[in-house]
Amino acid sequence: MRAKRILIFGAPVIAFCLFGAMRRASAAPADERVVRLAELEIDPAQLEAYKAALKEEIEISIRAEPGVLTLYAVSVKGEPNHIRLFETYRNTAAYRAHLETPHFRKYKAETHRMVKSLKLVETEPIVLGSRLK
Amino acid sequence: MRAKRILIFGAPVIAFCLFGAMRRASAAPADERVVRLAELEIDPAQLEAYKAALKEEIEISIRAEPGVLTLYAVSVKGEPNHIRLFETYRNTAAYRAHLETPHFRKYKAETHRMVKSLKLVETEPIVLGSRLK
Repeated sequence: MRAKRILIFGAPVIAFCLFGAMRRASAAPADERVVRLAELEIDPAQLEAYKAALKEEIEISIRAEPGVLTLYAVSVKGEPNHIRLFETYRNTAAYRAHLETPHFRKYKAETHRMVKSLKLVETEPIVLGSRLK
Repeated sequence: MRAKRILIFGAPVIAFCLFGAMRRASAAPADERVVRLAELEIDPAQLEAYKAALKEEIEISIRAEPGVLTLYAVSVKGEPNHIRLFETYRNTAAYRAHLETPHFRKYKAETHRMVKSLKLVETEPIVLGSRLK
């Protein structure tokens, strides 16, 4: 009876601790993070196809790569074919690994004729303030 | 005895449930989110003072405003006085409320003579992919 009671009440305690540990694991030291910005201009005639490929690539990356922390894609208001990406990787190794994944390579192969210009901006993080950490 | 045991084991259960509820509350429907980019050029002679004011403003905003989801600040590599901000708010109301807070007003008052140029870019979110949700 006693063992059963401990089990019943103990399970959520273990779950809670594991949950906490997982959350801590997902936070990386901010000073190792790699943040890159990309500014793209897309061929307007191929914009919907480009956005579909981008969405797929982002969804798979976030799901499958623990080192990919954010892949935010937005378009400039009033200029829907001007796309900005804000990419955060846990560290340099995670960024390099991302470039070698099948889903990233597929995205690059599918979209390289849709992209009229691509400007990559390397950055140094100052503060990466997020409630989502 | 029984009541005490329930209390001991029950407290983490309650904590766990509250924690889960808080996490759900922090996720906002992506289509209501407001994302703004800012591109700033800072007077190099005042860069350290500017960064200190920015850090303080970001830390207070993230801590005190549930509607401020991200305030990422980075500098362009090799051009430390070129700052880029990536700001995500839960919705338009949260963005407007942020502009009225004492800490944002203090930051604006302290820094307006340090900022040589400021370009705000309004955006439409496409995909806001984050492991940190």
